[in-house]
Amino acid sequence: MSNQEIYRPRPISGFPEWLPEQRLIELKWIDKIRRTFESFGFCSIETPSIEELDVLLAKGETDNEIYTLARLQAEGDDATDARLGLHYDLTVPFARYVAQHFSELVFPFKRYQIQRAWRGERPQDGRYREFYQCDIDVINVDHLPLHFDAEIPAIIYNTLRSLEIGGIQIRINNRKILEGYLKGLGIKDTISAIRTLDKLDKIGEEGVTSTLQSELKLSQDLATRCLALATIRTTETSFVEEVKALGVQSDLLDEGLEELVFVVEELGTLKRGAILADLSIARGFDYYTGTVYETVLLDFPNLGSICSGGRYDNLAGSFINRKLPGVGISFGLSRTFGKLLKEQKLEIGAKCPTDVLMIFPNLEQRENATRTANLLRQRGVNVEMYHAPGKISRQLRYASRKGIPYVWFPPFEDGGIHEVKDMSSGNQTAADPETWCSGS
Amino acid sequence: MSNQEIYRPRPISGFPEWLPEQRLIELKWIDKIRRTFESFGFCSIETPSIEELDVLLAKGETDNEIYTLARLQAEGDDATDARLGLHYDLTVPFARYVAQHFSELVFPFKRYQIQRAWRGERPQDGRYREFYQCDIDVINVDHLPLHFDAEIPAIIYNTLRSLEIGGIQIRINNRKILEGYLKGLGIKDTISAIRTLDKLDKIGEEGVTSTLQSELKLSQDLATRCLALATIRTTETSFVEEVKALGVQSDLLDEGLEELVFVVEELGTLKRGAILADLSIARGFDYYTGTVYETVLLDFPNLGSICSGGRYDNLAGSFINRKLPGVGISFGLSRTFGKLLKEQKLEIGAKCPTDVLMIFPNLEQRENATRTANLLRQRGVNVEMYHAPGKISRQLRYASRKGIPYVWFPPFEDGGIHEVKDMSSGNQTAADPETWCSGS
Repeated sequence: MSNQEIYRPRPISGFPEWLPEQRLIELKWIDKIRRTFESFGFCSIETPSIEELDVLLAKGETDNEIYTLARLQAEGDDATDARLGLHYDLTVPFARYVAQHFSELVFPFKRYQIQRAWRGERPQDGRYREFYQCDIDVINVDHLPLHFDAEIPAIIYNTLRSLEIGGIQIRINNRKILEGYLKGLGIKDTISAIRTLDKLDKIGEEGVTSTLQSELKLSQDLATRCLALATIRTTETSFVEEVKALGVQSDLLDEGLEELVFVVEELGTLKRGAILADLSIARGFDYYTGTVYETVLLDFPNLGSICSGGRYDNLAGSFINRKLPGVGISFGLSRTFGKLLKEQKLEIGAKCPTDVLMIFPNLEQRENATRTANLLRQRGVNVEMYHAPGKISRQLRYASRKGIPYVWFPPFEDGGIHEVKDMSSGNQTAADPETWCSGS
Repeated sequence: MSNQEIYRPRPISGFPEWLPEQRLIELKWIDKIRRTFESFGFCSIETPSIEELDVLLAKGETDNEIYTLARLQAEGDDATDARLGLHYDLTVPFARYVAQHFSELVFPFKRYQIQRAWRGERPQDGRYREFYQCDIDVINVDHLPLHFDAEIPAIIYNTLRSLEIGGIQIRINNRKILEGYLKGLGIKDTISAIRTLDKLDKIGEEGVTSTLQSELKLSQDLATRCLALATIRTTETSFVEEVKALGVQSDLLDEGLEELVFVVEELGTLKRGAILADLSIARGFDYYTGTVYETVLLDFPNLGSICSGGRYDNLAGSFINRKLPGVGISFGLSRTFGKLLKEQKLEIGAKCPTDVLMIFPNLEQRENATRTANLLRQRGVNVEMYHAPGKISRQLRYASRKGIPYVWFPPFEDGGIHEVKDMSSGNQTAADPETWCSGS
């Protein structure tokens, strides 16, 4: 191959790729996320990376740039695959999955899904074209208890806490509050008004009132009253009195308040400040019908919501003639991980999962070294055999460069003692492979 | 959404999708595979799902049907993405990764990669268009010790044993034996001869000799002597005497025999019969240069090799001007899992990872039930809260349908005792959430 032409590969914009020491942390994140989801009884599902375009476009969604597939050597009459596209989120595939396997699932169906998704967008800062999402949803037939609206943020709070990425705040609202209040004010185009209020964080109070007046033709008084609702933020249920003080009457508003009170009270056992009732939150998507969530990393407010979701009346209405209400949330793993990595907020450690490097003193002792390594492995220790006999200094340097915490010296002769060197302290002590543990 | 048109989704041929109870087993497989790989110190990497077509086609490979990407709403002048394709294996991306990050890696570099790959083939029985591969490779600069040629099958043997899928046999050969022997016989087109010998399992002894005569124009005597090598199979190193008895002289042959003896002897600690020196094995790919592996499930000989690989002289020669020899193997996870599932050889159990269903006796006791659930979760137990108070019989039925092994009854009044029902035996006993473990 020496006379072959060299093609120097380059990174492809928007498709993140991590070094082993970075991937090790990403994998720990994924493990912790999974462990928390499973500790609440959620089961894993995985859907294919692709869906039929008819499925991806069933709701007429076009905001997301979909990657379609073609076969490099496809014949003209064999265009079937052109009807396939990579999924751009995990919600549409989940809806399709539930509809397709409806008769084989037990409801309420609680699933988590940790998979990549793809969007053919122009990559910008922090925007990926391929990224991991971690979704949990609970879905039921006909009716879903409000209980789950409170369980979802508790799960996410526990999940994000386990990642040790600083303070977290889950901001919760209920679309019924927004809609009921706006209807109670006599506003007809509630969707546009809600979209404007949802931008409060981005465009500020003046931006909201001026947009409501210019685009929705609301009077200054009405615009101000809209804003008065959206600026209510409380860490407990006192938002109710604040809303009532605004003097708007609406059954839908009362229903929304009651639901939000239930959720906030249920979450009362979490650390104070973990939950914020924030009446500006709406989530852009029209399919949310009740509780809505956003989550901010307090140390990175500019990152926006890293974890969003809410309740919907009918998940799979495009695919099945049954009413399937649900509630769910989606954590943008790659986006968050990439940001913290870039900001150097993650402690980069070893380049491999090895606990112990087994020194290979000489060829005669290879069998003994292998036996010791196997014994340690059976006891759950990750052991790498150095690959060839040679200078100890070279083997130690290898361990050091890879960040391997311990180096094991099997006896140089039969019946001799084993020794272990702690690479961080430099201490070397006798050890028994039958009982040794890291940290001992 | 009730007046919306319903699009009934169908399974897409070649893109497997599992029910939760099946996925639970697949996930256990992946965990076990990962754990074994890591126990030998291999680090995880993940590459993007896509590569530039220039990378995928760097070796001029065209046997695999590559899926290329297009953007649904792409403009005419924005055809960049048409240069991207989904990877069809994990070897090419790994080669590109090593070349691209060369200066940041520590060698010998040992990595595992468990990812999906895509091939736009016509789906046939057991052939997937999207499938998981589990690859391990060790790669080094300039020279890679033979030690690793023996470590790779040991890792794979341990990995497959942990899956409890019946008897496994790893069949090993060395390309140098085949090439040296054929050259020693004076055969010029060794590649074609090796390809024919590699088909021994499929076309039989007569098929091999007649093909060698008709297509390679070998004499009957020469064809018979070729076959004599390829039919040698021994579970230890006695293949050496059998080859020597054939009376062919070649330095390359001797080198190959010496290497294969080293590998087979190193693997001597494995169960007898786990390893077979099989001198017909060649692997179709021309890039293997020494040791080659195939793996059969003894209960499913027709499945062919589930795990194949070997040693190559220069992994990333298309991408970097350094010599990077390596040795690796790839386990076809989806193919093997799909086959065993279809043959009903996998014990399908619970539909979720829940250990304990927390009964929800009444609204007053919800807080107590939640607290008990959280306590158990902190102790590593997966606990699902039933979602609403209601008939106990209904809650037990839910646990039974999901295959949840234990149901927990928190006290109906403060200070009362907790009880746990073992769903398989029906026994219900007092339990302390501070100390209870499943199986206790």
